[in-house]
Formats: sequence, structure tokens, C-alpha cells
Amino acid sequence: MTTFLGLGAMGTALAATLLDAGLPVVGWNRDPRRAQPLAGRGAVVADTVDKAVVGDGPVIVCLFDHRSVHDVLDPVAAALSGRTVINLTTTTPAESRELAAWAAGHRIAYLDGAILAVPDMIGGPGSMIFYSGTEAAFAEHRELLDRWGESTFFGADAGLSSVYDTAMLTGMYTMVAGFLHGAAMLAAEGVPAAEFARWQAPFLTAMTGGFARYAATIDAGDYAGGGQSLRFTEVALDTLLRATTGQGVSTELLQPVHDLVRRQIAAGHGDLDTARMFEELRTTR
Amino acid sequence: MTTFLGLGAMGTALAATLLDAGLPVVGWNRDPRRAQPLAGRGAVVADTVDKAVVGDGPVIVCLFDHRSVHDVLDPVAAALSGRTVINLTTTTPAESRELAAWAAGHRIAYLDGAILAVPDMIGGPGSMIFYSGTEAAFAEHRELLDRWGESTFFGADAGLSSVYDTAMLTGMYTMVAGFLHGAAMLAAEGVPAAEFARWQAPFLTAMTGGFARYAATIDAGDYAGGGQSLRFTEVALDTLLRATTGQGVSTELLQPVHDLVRRQIAAGHGDLDTARMFEELRTTR
Ligand SMILES: NC(=O)c1ccc[n+]([C@@H]2O[C@H](COP(=O)([O-])OP(=O)(O)OC[C@H]3O[C@@H](n4cnc5c(N)ncnc54)[C@H](OP(=O)(O)O)[C@@H]3O)[C@@H](O)[C@H]2O)c1
Ligand SMILES: NC(=O)c1ccc[n+]([C@@H]2O[C@H](COP(=O)([O-])OP(=O)(O)OC[C@H]3O[C@@H](n4cnc5c(N)ncnc54)[C@H](OP(=O)(O)O)[C@@H]3O)[C@@H](O)[C@H]2O)c1
Repeated sequence: MTTFLGLGAMGTALAATLLDAGLPVVGWNRDPRRAQPLAGRGAVVADTVDKAVVGDGPVIVCLFDHRSVHDVLDPVAAALSGRTVINLTTTTPAESRELAAWAAGHRIAYLDGAILAVPDMIGGPGSMIFYSGTEAAFAEHRELLDRWGESTFFGADAGLSSVYDTAMLTGMYTMVAGFLHGAAMLAAEGVPAAEFARWQAPFLTAMTGGFARYAATIDAGDYAGGGQSLRFTEVALDTLLRATTGQGVSTELLQPVHDLVRRQIAAGHGDLDTARMFEELRTTR
Repeated sequence: MTTFLGLGAMGTALAATLLDAGLPVVGWNRDPRRAQPLAGRGAVVADTVDKAVVGDGPVIVCLFDHRSVHDVLDPVAAALSGRTVINLTTTTPAESRELAAWAAGHRIAYLDGAILAVPDMIGGPGSMIFYSGTEAAFAEHRELLDRWGESTFFGADAGLSSVYDTAMLTGMYTMVAGFLHGAAMLAAEGVPAAEFARWQAPFLTAMTGGFARYAATIDAGDYAGGGQSLRFTEVALDTLLRATTGQGVSTELLQPVHDLVRRQIAAGHGDLDTARMFEELRTTR
């Protein structure tokens, strides 16, 4: 019996995948109305968290945030002792580590998961879930986890799956914001966003091919190797900013990239590879 | 005979492709030393712009910026009358239109080009060049242009290739900046950038698959359709900002995305699709 705490959009998708495979599920949701669709598909619906954490199966947690996870788990900590909690709620690395320490204090095996998929993708191609924490728990439940998507284990540090997750999602949101910026530039000419998407999706896909070269420069720690210089990039960004303004589009998303580049040039790094932005970002400001 | 004005990294790559195909080339560069490699490959090197714009072939311009194009072309405008200028220098849409008007005033056929490739890619797979301006000039020289990469003509408005170019490059630079941000987050855990690149390149490639859906929402002008809401995105960005700070990484690139989302929520749009950022970006601030 697998327990689900939290049957929102994602918890429902995860539980439904198991029900479709004929596996037994018991679930709880704060607002009981949201559990109804799963009841109709054969899940046992519990009206309290206590009644949901029965048996000795894994406890899948998929709630809103770190605080809601504590709200739900703290009262049943004793009942979870000796069992496995797999927390798929999105949290920061620090919050994941805090939950891992809390779990260890209650002798609960803890696996922190980060889902890189939307609910519709769960159980289908392209769904990826990252895990870190108790390795034995990952090994024991691997077969179950693989039903939701491609599972990867990143090690005993429970925070590591969150670091990968948040790093990758940061890249996704900045990419999407950049797409909307570009679409706004073309809209000023009456070009539909769909027409822009047709060009931009394959172009950015091709450009992800450059990540490996940037990474090699960063990992070598040598920015004098002759890639595109910060000075060249500054000229390019300057053109893009003027073009953006000319199209009546806000520069608020692009200006910070320009500022970051200009700061490095001012510090004497203009001839270095643009990948040096990595170093500049490492200082919190 | 094809004339090249500007034999920097890109001009040299463009001219070399023609020489490799056995086509005659005459080139000029302000600093004559940079023309030497092409002389060794069979190009005629002219020591003045005047001597380079001989014959009746197309004149390919690949200089630093809009101003340098005027510096070089203005003195030979009369000699160019009745001929075709193909300008591959990166400029803003407004600058491209200014050059088109200048050319028209001198009875010069004008094609504005935007190269979406680095010099190494010219003549090989993945090289794309966008053109707009005099359609007859595009048709006449199509065979030549196709030697450098996939050529696309966007219409008689000379500025349009620059709009596509600058919109697409904005997306590229924001994506690369986001990649470096993510790499910095993982570096705090000792994870090499190469390891991050291995995950992020296919992930972002998969996520470009979402552009079409965003575009459909934008083109329909209806943001109430039930995609990921601005409120949901704000919570996600908030987690990403806290994770970023926790890893000792600057939030300067991500904070503006958060601000843009928050502004819309404050204006009462929290339940609308995140693609609404497009509308918010259309107002210059
Ligand atoms: N949806 C996605 O695309 C996606 C992708 C990757 C990761 N995730 C992550 O998955 C988690 C769940 O997302 P979702 O899409 O399922 O969100 P959702 O549909 O909004 O569901 C949120 C769930 O959290 C519950 N909840 C919130 N506060 C609570 C509290 N204080 N006590 C008890 N329960 C509480 C809600 O219960 P009520 O129904 O009673 O409000 C609901 O079950 C989030 O951490 C999200 O970041 C989602
Ligand atoms: N490289 C790329 O990856 C790439 C990609 C797409 C588009 N482009 C565009 O292609 C154009 C050329 O780029 P590039 O990579 O070849 O740059 P580059 O190697 O720096 O060459 C710049 C050229 O401009 C000339 N120049 C600059 N100011 C001048 C002036 N006032 N008068 C006369 N000549 C002047 C330089 O002459 P000197 O040698 O005498 O200085 C040189 O020939 C730029 O607009 C760039 O944005 C480049």
C-alpha cells in the first residue's frame, strides 16, 4: 500500500499512475473534495493523515511547500518511524536538508525528490525525477519510482536533487522569459508569436550545443582561451537593447545581463571569455 | 566578381567559402594585415574601398556596426549606383531601415542580412542567414547566398531580418546567462559545469517544446485558458530565488523575472496564464 499525502494536480497524477498499474493506494488531501477523482478510480481515501499512514509502504508527500510538509508530517512523526518518506514537494536545498535531518531524528528513511515534469507528463516519455537522500530507500522503491518517469539518484546529500532542480528551473524560466521578450519584439511588426516560436525553438535547441564548451572553459578555470570575449558580447547586447527599445519592448530582462557584462569589463576582464559571467554570479549581491 | 568590404572573422569566413568553391573574390579591410590570409587563398586584395568595388558583382559588407558601414560606403555611393549591396553587419531594425533608405536614395539595390551562426559554421550545417529588403536582389543572388547557409527571405521591409535576428539573439543571451547562473548554483556543491551541461542541454531542448503553447495563448489573446498561472509561477520563482541565495549566487538575473510576475499579480492578473508576461513586456519602461 502506497500512501499519498497531498492530492493536488501533481499528487493526483502520481497516484493515478499507480492505480492504473493495479497497485493499491491510500490518499489524503486537506480539502477532501480534491480526493474524489481518485476514489472513483479505486483509491482508498482517508479523512485524516493518521488513517492515511497505515501499513508499511512508502509515504509519498506532494504538498505546496516546505511549511505545509511540516504541518502535515509533524503530528504523525512517531507513526512514520521505521518507514520511508519520499517528499516530492518543491523545496530549496536548505529546506530539503532540514527535512532530512528532521526525518533522521525520527528514524524515518528520507528521500527528497524533484519532479522535472508537469502532471500530464507523469508516467509518460520525457518525465524526469531527481532523488537524493537515503540510498537504500531509493534502491528499495526504484521500481515504483520508475513508473512516474526516469529516476536519477544524486547521492546521500538530500539537498542535491533540489540544487539540480532549482538550477535547471532557473534556466527554464529565464529561457521562457527571453522567448516572451523576443515574441514581443516581433509583435511590434505584426508577426504572430507562433511564427517566432517556429524559428526560436530549433535555434535555441542548436544553441544548447554551446553549453558543453562554456562548461569546459569554466571547469578549466581559464577564461583567456579565445572564446567570444566579454567586450564582443557587450557590443552585441548593446545592439539588442537598442533594438528592444526600438520595438517598444521593456529592457528590464536584458539590461541585467548587460550590466553583469559591463561590470566585468570595468574590472579589466573585457578580453576574457563571456563564460566568465559564471565567476561574477558567484558573489551574492 | 564578388566584393567584400570588411575581412574580420566573419567577412573572412564568408569570402573563404566562395574561394573554396572556385569563385572570384576581391576584398578590402581597413587594416590590410587582416586581408593577408585570403590573399594566400587566391583573393584579390584591394588597398582602397574604391578599388574593391570594381565590376558589377554584389558587394558584401561585413563590418563592425552601422556607423562603420556608413564610414566605408558613403565615399563610394556613386560607384555603387545600379549595383547590389548585401549588408551582413549586425544592426538594429531602425539602422537597417536607415541604410535601405540611404541605398534607395543612391539607386542601390539593398539586402539586409542577419547571420545566425559563428564564423566556423559558415558554409556548414546549422548556419542560418535571414534576409530582407530588395526581393529581386535576393532572387538574383540566392545561389551565392545559399553557399553560406540556409537563406530565408522575410520581405521587402529591410528591418525585418534584424527584428528576427535581435529577437532570437535576445533569447540566446538570456538562455546562456541562465545556464551560467545554474552552473554557479551547482558549483557551490562542487559539481562541475560539464555535469550540469549534460542535464541542462536536453532539458531546455525539451522545454522549447512549450513555446508553441505559449505562442498559441498569446496569439489568441486569451490568458484565462488555464495554463500555469502567474500566481503559481511567482511561488516557483520565489523558491528559485531563495535557492539561488542559499547557494551564494547572485539573484540579479532572476529577480527581474520575479518582479515582472509580481507586478502583474499586483495588477490583479494572478490567475492568468504566465504567458501574459508578453503583454507586460510590450510597455517600454
Ligand atoms: N504542477 C506541476 O507542474 C509541478 C511540477 C513539478 C513540481 N511540482 C510540485 O509539486 C507540489 C504540488 O504541486 P501541485 O501542482 O500538485 O499543486 P496544487 O495542485 O496546488 O496542490 C497543492 C497541494 O498542497 C496542499 N496544501 C497546501 N497547503 C497545505 C497545508 N498547509 N496543509 C496541507 N495541505 C496543504 C493542497 O491541499 P488543498 O487541496 O487542501 O488546498 C494540495 O493538495 C509543489 O511543491 C510543486 O512545486 C508541481
Ligand atoms: N563573429 C560572429 O560570430 C558573428 C556572428 C553573427 C554576426 N556577426 C556580425 O558580423 C560583423 C563582423 O563581425 P566579425 O566577427 O567579423 O568582427 P571582427 O572580426 O571584429 O571584424 C570587424 C571588422 O570591422 C572593421 N571595422 C570596424 N570599424 C571600422 C571602421 N570604422 N571602418 C572600417 N572598418 C571597420 C574591422 O576592420 P579592422 O580589421 O581594420 O579593425 C573588421 O574588418 C559584426 O556586425 C558582427 O555582429 C558576427
